[in-house]
Amino acid sequence: MKKVSVIGDGNVKPTSEIYRAAFEVGKIIGSRGIVLICGGLFGVMEAACKGAKEGGGITVGILPHYEDTSNSFVDIKVQTGMGHGRNVIVAASGDPVVAVGGNYGTLSEIAFALKLGKRVIGFRTWEVEGIENYEEMVDFISAVDRAL
Amino acid sequence: MKKVSVIGDGNVKPTSEIYRAAFEVGKIIGSRGIVLICGGLFGVMEAACKGAKEGGGITVGILPHYEDTSNSFVDIKVQTGMGHGRNVIVAASGDPVVAVGGNYGTLSEIAFALKLGKRVIGFRTWEVEGIENYEEMVDFISAVDRAL
Amino acid sequence: MKKVSVIGDGNVKPTSEIYRAAFEVGKIIGSRGIVLICGGLFGVMEAACKGAKEGGGITVGILPHYEDTSNSFVDIKVQTGMGHGRNVIVAASGDPVVAVGGNYGTLSEIAFALKLGKRVIGFRTWEVEGIENYEEMVDFISAVDRAL
Amino acid sequence: MKKVSVIGDGNVKPTSEIYRAAFEVGKIIGSRGIVLICGGLFGVMEAACKGAKEGGGITVGILPHYEDTSNSFVDIKVQTGMGHGRNVIVAASGDPVVAVGGNYGTLSEIAFALKLGKRVIGFRTWEVEGIENYEEMVDFISAVDRAL
Repeated sequence: MKKVSVIGDGNVKPTSEIYRAAFEVGKIIGSRGIVLICGGLFGVMEAACKGAKEGGGITVGILPHYEDTSNSFVDIKVQTGMGHGRNVIVAASGDPVVAVGGNYGTLSEIAFALKLGKRVIGFRTWEVEGIENYEEMVDFISAVDRAL
Repeated sequence: MKKVSVIGDGNVKPTSEIYRAAFEVGKIIGSRGIVLICGGLFGVMEAACKGAKEGGGITVGILPHYEDTSNSFVDIKVQTGMGHGRNVIVAASGDPVVAVGGNYGTLSEIAFALKLGKRVIGFRTWEVEGIENYEEMVDFISAVDRAL
Repeated sequence: MKKVSVIGDGNVKPTSEIYRAAFEVGKIIGSRGIVLICGGLFGVMEAACKGAKEGGGITVGILPHYEDTSNSFVDIKVQTGMGHGRNVIVAASGDPVVAVGGNYGTLSEIAFALKLGKRVIGFRTWEVEGIENYEEMVDFISAVDRAL
Repeated sequence: MKKVSVIGDGNVKPTSEIYRAAFEVGKIIGSRGIVLICGGLFGVMEAACKGAKEGGGITVGILPHYEDTSNSFVDIKVQTGMGHGRNVIVAASGDPVVAVGGNYGTLSEIAFALKLGKRVIGFRTWEVEGIENYEEMVDFISAVDRAL
């Protein structure tokens, strides 16, 4: 099964444009029958999983804990117990890697994705040499859509 | 989704009883709609995945590498790049943990499963205090069947 | 610098024979100028570090947390944040690996050590094929002494 | 013991200014009796270790492999076998974190360091919000010197 990773800020509100972008991108991924990989928690991760389920897809959450701390839209919970160390697994398990907004955790995942030679498509995320970063949601969604 | 981990010797031949036991147990897991978690490689892992697919289930391989080194029956490949460190993830992500034969890698997974308070059901595996270990395949299969 | 790992039960009391054995073995390691590697926490880990410092050596604690949760006798704290995943690092970083008593965490480390081809010398620890396990402290101490 | 992490490009030549900066900074760290933490490999890591030894200090290499793949100036080798996953351990185990040049691996370590609330002092490294990044070696060395 083809897999795409969606990474981003775990604290964004459902009303934000970042959350909506993650939801839309998740929906496209799910509707294509592509497995969505993410960190399993909230904010962008929740939005992407919610979208993927609405699209009819399967979602995988690579959790930092041993306990099930996942959002309600994760189908398969991988309980790593490895803290931030799980970020490298999220980056390594999907291609392309899609970054929506994001803080320092997201930056570590972008770095690992580029290190591993993956294509990274971003929406208002970190400006790092080697990624495609879009300011307008329509351009971002369209870029992800063409990349799948 | 409910998840069960199957662990065991990565080098057993398809003609061995260990391989057959792993296949049978995978088939039951798959036919119940339970997600099969394993280390993604060969021997017991391959047998269990093959069985799970024959049963109509979904298989997840927690791989030690960044590359896709999985057997042909893994649906979702989690590429950890963490070497033997991925064993703790295999043990932590399913409950019960089913051990079929096994070498030192399997022993580490049994230890982690027990540490995390999981039930461990074994077939001709390591004799460790706290696990149920069966000598006869029929007893083993029946025990797993009742535990799911 | 030569390194030896000491593993074992994190909950034993300072009055127990297990604690004393770990202290004695740590003292020999330290007095030989060998670096003591351990999990950095309490019980056997603390005892071994205390002994190593009394012997004039250097101690390294491979901690499961990001925070400094180490015992008072750890010189160098490696803060992994990887939970039980740090066990494989403890086993991989020393040779021989010395096991004093121990629970399931210790068993996972013994398994990794043997997987990685290390010599494992134990005192009243898990009976696993491939290790040397002593019942009498004098025999154990003497075996470690000769192995260094 | 106080610990400082030095991170950076593993491929720079000994003749480069990056290598020299890492050497100088390692020397200051070592001469202060501070433990130098690094990834244990070559380029900046080697330069910093070489400097630390010249300064009379102790060096720790958090290696990605189980094998000893370290440069010649590492005293204590922590063999993680966790690939890029070891980057989070390097970032978590020192404070401040000093970044000299660097590629995507270094960027992941900067991200983890900031995520964990550490001070990051850089020399011609990634421009990330939250770090101090110097263009002139004299300013960089002086900033590290004051921070220790």
